[in-house]
Amino acid sequence: MAMALDQARAAAARGEVPVGAVVVGPDGRVLGQAGNATRALHDPSAHAEVLAIRAACRTLETDRLPGCALFVTLEPCAACAGVIAAARIARLIYGASDPKSGGVMHGARVFSHPQTHHVPEIYDGIAATDAQALLTAFFAARR
Amino acid sequence: MAMALDQARAAAARGEVPVGAVVVGPDGRVLGQAGNATRALHDPSAHAEVLAIRAACRTLETDRLPGCALFVTLEPCAACAGVIAAARIARLIYGASDPKSGGVMHGARVFSHPQTHHVPEIYDGIAATDAQALLTAFFAARR
Repeated sequence: MAMALDQARAAAARGEVPVGAVVVGPDGRVLGQAGNATRALHDPSAHAEVLAIRAACRTLETDRLPGCALFVTLEPCAACAGVIAAARIARLIYGASDPKSGGVMHGARVFSHPQTHHVPEIYDGIAATDAQALLTAFFAARR
Repeated sequence: MAMALDQARAAAARGEVPVGAVVVGPDGRVLGQAGNATRALHDPSAHAEVLAIRAACRTLETDRLPGCALFVTLEPCAACAGVIAAARIARLIYGASDPKSGGVMHGARVFSHPQTHHVPEIYDGIAATDAQALLTAFFAARR
């Protein structure tokens, strides 16, 4: 999660919403990591989770990541949760809760319907204070 | 929708699930079009809708597509619905209903929660018979 927080800080420095994500393989190897880059890439799907998963899939030349863990600093939105399910991520570990935009424990609750093709193990609240502090500082500075 | 069906047929010919999508601008110009390519691209997020939206965003050098319409041959899944909301697509026009994996009228119902940042106008069932026939033939041939 420390690496994910580093990615979130780097995103903030680029003017992107500070969220970071890291995909770790079954053997503990880092397969992909990214921060939000929707603005820089002109891509509304370029959330940290999706970019880290895409990077890991490129590394392994696959479109599924069974046995892998995704660390992300913020509760994934519905779009990211859907990609996490599609990628068959085994464990989702996230930091801050996101009542406004989250799609795991809030709103769409993507993993809580039979239409999801996969449900990861979920661990929330990990380093949540640090993750939330980054977001709060970022949005406070923009007001 | 005829162009989206052409993209779906091209996807099937590549061995990908036959779904196609087209983004049309406010002036009627085609800004992006794609078929599913999750296998070829090693990218679990490479559904037709997401690829068409990414292409349109590249065309306009933006991460939002207000005023644009997305035509897609199948009800979007939760991941795609989330990206459609993030991109601020004005109108979503889709073909076949997807009770098994859909995230618009089924399961996560992504646009039906306050956590969605945007709700498009939705028109369903457009050329649904043709879209469903492509999917049925594709999966029948693989059994």
